[in-house]
Amino acid sequence: MKALLLVAHGSRRIESNDEVAALAQKLALKADGEFAVVSHAFLELSEPSIPAGIEHCLSQGAKSVTVLPYFLARGTHVVEDIPEQVAIKQREYPDADIHIVDYLGTADELVDLLFNLATG
Amino acid sequence: MKALLLVAHGSRRIESNDEVAALAQKLALKADGEFAVVSHAFLELSEPSIPAGIEHCLSQGAKSVTVLPYFLARGTHVVEDIPEQVAIKQREYPDADIHIVDYLGTADELVDLLFNLATG
Repeated sequence: MKALLLVAHGSRRIESNDEVAALAQKLALKADGEFAVVSHAFLELSEPSIPAGIEHCLSQGAKSVTVLPYFLARGTHVVEDIPEQVAIKQREYPDADIHIVDYLGTADELVDLLFNLATG
Repeated sequence: MKALLLVAHGSRRIESNDEVAALAQKLALKADGEFAVVSHAFLELSEPSIPAGIEHCLSQGAKSVTVLPYFLARGTHVVEDIPEQVAIKQREYPDADIHIVDYLGTADELVDLLFNLATG
């Protein structure tokens, strides 16, 4: 059973964190069949943390957890901080397949999406 | 003649700012015909600033400047800071059509895009 964990930065603004939760819910509808569990987590400033989010996925029976960074730039958060947080659970559950995929900013489709926003 | 200005937060990391510049270049290829000028600007930490970016578009002959916030969350930057910076040039050029469109995080297509990233 596979799980998908959407990881955002986290904000002091509740509304921003709620936007991430709502997006994860939409992803859950879209991912039905591919991922039995879709959840979200925050790098900082909000809960659940990344380790807690991974733990939640595993506790639901997931053998595989895909960590998807909801970040635009390849900064320290993407390169170091998220992998460090994920590694905590990779060490704790060596038999689980816990892996990080490309962050949002790498997606080729961003160009089309931005063009659509620009033209309304 | 219409211009499109992609506005990102800006980073101390040159590579992150370069990612934005590269994305604006891809947008320019995509937007050819719709926007004669496509440029980028940063809210802080890097140049060009938003007013400088708008000025650049107008100096190229644009009568309309569409400002597109490359931001994921509806935080203070989107709600207050970007409009304040844009207003400087709106006051200076009342005859130009300088307007801000929805930020990246509002795009419905983000769900499909994230699903594609998750499934490789």
